[in-house]
Amino acid sequence: MKTQTEELWVDIPERRAIVSIHNDVERIVSESGVQDGMVLVNAMHITASVFINDYESGLHADYERWLEELVPFNPGTDPTSGGYLHNRTGEDNADAHHKRQIMGREVVVAITDGQLHLGPWEHIFYYEFDGRRRKRILVKVIGH
Amino acid sequence: MKTQTEELWVDIPERRAIVSIHNDVERIVSESGVQDGMVLVNAMHITASVFINDYESGLHADYERWLEELVPFNPGTDPTSGGYLHNRTGEDNADAHHKRQIMGREVVVAITDGQLHLGPWEHIFYYEFDGRRRKRILVKVIGH
Amino acid sequence: MKTQTEELWVDIPERRAIVSIHNDVERIVSESGVQDGMVLVNAMHITASVFINDYESGLHADYERWLEELVPFNPGTDPTSGGYLHNRTGEDNADAHHKRQIMGREVVVAITDGQLHLGPWEHIFYYEFDGRRRKRILVKVIGH
Repeated sequence: MKTQTEELWVDIPERRAIVSIHNDVERIVSESGVQDGMVLVNAMHITASVFINDYESGLHADYERWLEELVPFNPGTDPTSGGYLHNRTGEDNADAHHKRQIMGREVVVAITDGQLHLGPWEHIFYYEFDGRRRKRILVKVIGH
Repeated sequence: MKTQTEELWVDIPERRAIVSIHNDVERIVSESGVQDGMVLVNAMHITASVFINDYESGLHADYERWLEELVPFNPGTDPTSGGYLHNRTGEDNADAHHKRQIMGREVVVAITDGQLHLGPWEHIFYYEFDGRRRKRILVKVIGH
Repeated sequence: MKTQTEELWVDIPERRAIVSIHNDVERIVSESGVQDGMVLVNAMHITASVFINDYESGLHADYERWLEELVPFNPGTDPTSGGYLHNRTGEDNADAHHKRQIMGREVVVAITDGQLHLGPWEHIFYYEFDGRRRKRILVKVIGH
């Protein structure tokens, strides 16, 4: 049995952005030498997601608008006027902790014949909901 | 260490449907000979989900109605009138890419004593959000 | 290759609550002797979630309010007045089956150097949406 572990660093200058990490995950799987197994890819921060969907900028803009409707950014601390109790800690990112639950923390992808075993349009992304600082993504390969 | 890999094909004639894949996953786990490990089950298409919940048609109809409220089907391309930018690619399935994020891409299930290790009501389903064509589900077993 | 399996029992007296299971998962990983691998932690019941986010009571109260907005508790059986078809089975917990889809069934966490490999604020929680009875959480360790 083999394992491989790598932390990817990202530094998103905007508050929110969707960034492809697909090639990084492919590279790490290749370097691991694992022919058959699984790779876990997860955000290490709780205001970000890793997800698999389409590499299409229109869809990404749709996600942005939709998530903002489901759980709007609001730096306030009063829930009766759209704020969040979490922001009483001095943060303004309560919405980001919610958005990440919709989009998910992690993906687990199969490895077959030494490659990511994906459908034709599956692409691995990192979704930053509270950027403007360095953050990490964990890639863990397990298999043989 | 053992692994087993199988792609399941589905061909849903409707746009949307919830289909049990539980017996297929059980069969593949049994054929793998793995006594202790994990099985990953994921949609290979980005307008579909694999999820675990109740085998109860009323609940499934509730999900349908709820998801349609959260992110309505709309073939339009203008967000200001309920459409989606993604549909400018010529697709009409932008809602499906959103619904799949709510319901999830994948499940990972433990295998113990050669069986799926599940709670009493856990049942594995495929949720099609944009059918009327052949699609695949990946089942990957890893363990010993 | 090593595996370790344990079911954690919880008995939440309220209908809904967020409970830390972080220390239990840490203990099981430590007892497994696995230095490098993955741990799967999942609710065994379909009206509950396991998720990773902040250990902050304000955020947890925000989640409560937000989930109640997205899918309100309603024991009724008529969808046209806010009820759910699922409740025709005699249950009143249809909302719980929806809330659990938002927050997720499971997390998969990497193990490196014999420890949970987590970011600085990642904390593992169980989210009960329909308590007042004994329920189980499954922890499955796999690695070497």
